[in-house]
Amino acid sequence: MHIPGPTIAQWESRYRAAFANSLTGFKSGNLVGTSNSSGRDNLAIMTSAVHLGSHPPLIMLVIRPDVAERHTLSNILETGVYTLNHIGANAVERAHQTAARYPADISEFDAVGLTRRAIPDFLAPAVAESPLSMGLELREERKLEINGTHLVIGEVVWVELDEAIVGEDGYIDIEAATTVAVSGLDSYHRSQRHCRMEYAKPDLSPRRQDVVKGA
Amino acid sequence: MHIPGPTIAQWESRYRAAFANSLTGFKSGNLVGTSNSSGRDNLAIMTSAVHLGSHPPLIMLVIRPDVAERHTLSNILETGVYTLNHIGANAVERAHQTAARYPADISEFDAVGLTRRAIPDFLAPAVAESPLSMGLELREERKLEINGTHLVIGEVVWVELDEAIVGEDGYIDIEAATTVAVSGLDSYHRSQRHCRMEYAKPDLSPRRQDVVKGA
Repeated sequence: MHIPGPTIAQWESRYRAAFANSLTGFKSGNLVGTSNSSGRDNLAIMTSAVHLGSHPPLIMLVIRPDVAERHTLSNILETGVYTLNHIGANAVERAHQTAARYPADISEFDAVGLTRRAIPDFLAPAVAESPLSMGLELREERKLEINGTHLVIGEVVWVELDEAIVGEDGYIDIEAATTVAVSGLDSYHRSQRHCRMEYAKPDLSPRRQDVVKGA
Repeated sequence: MHIPGPTIAQWESRYRAAFANSLTGFKSGNLVGTSNSSGRDNLAIMTSAVHLGSHPPLIMLVIRPDVAERHTLSNILETGVYTLNHIGANAVERAHQTAARYPADISEFDAVGLTRRAIPDFLAPAVAESPLSMGLELREERKLEINGTHLVIGEVVWVELDEAIVGEDGYIDIEAATTVAVSGLDSYHRSQRHCRMEYAKPDLSPRRQDVVKGA
């Protein structure tokens, strides 16, 4: 089926949003933990985290200021720090619920039943239930004129995880960690490893790794 | 295990890259199809596609100009159009192989054994083996000073897929399409649906959808 852009533009908005959000493929799901300068917490699910670089480790978030994500954005701009927390399979329902538009004076930790974990010398809270958490410091923020979304670029300043899931080569086995993937607006997925591949070179055929180094 | 940023900065570069690339969680994998103005094709795997908006449908790519992705960037800037193509489970090895640094005069379609599909009135080629392909027109490009990566924002101007995978609500069942997810630099995953959730509201508990609308 071939669908031209003008057809998509005519669709009802929720149908179009479900469709458009499925186009990129599987997405990460992270809980973004912040506090404001008075120490009031916020927790919001985001599926827009993207790897920007390794040295230093940089991650970009796309934040829409018109939804539940707005408190996250203002807290990050106010304090300069935030956490990203993977969503394990046992926390999917609670993680999804953070997308509800709670008033600013309600902590999503309390509202959805996730556990705030304080990190020494770091203002933003982590999620105790997450198999992998990291702290970030804001490095750059800019608004895209094209549709009003904000790009928030942060540097990873600490990582917490079970060392058993880190392979000899540095790969983190997020499948073993039960981290879920997201598709569309509301679908959560477990994963099953298909293969790991060796580094691609022009003069060699593609080769699967015989031993899964990260497992 | 708590790992401070300065420790990560001291690691050997490949180890650090494998680790840092695993941090965001599961990533999309897409083959980006382009041609230059002489009609020479390029195909490159990218894991950085992120949803930017639905009306119009906007997708952002992060492109590093120092690797195999550089031909993609120059072709997009030259012609203004490109395709994104999901990677089905049966094309993982060939998709991964497009990351090898082939010379500019070699088409990755030929080199890895994927089939070029011409789209009427659209300069960039699609991948015949992909379960979902879309065409994009460049809307904005900018270089990030923080680490030299390029942000490429495009509008989706057509989508091709099997209508059987589009649900009543617009959700595309990319799991049924066999689309794979990526983690780290080289790990490919099939998915298994955990649940779909109803729209989150502050005054309601989280509710799973009883019937998977997209299946």
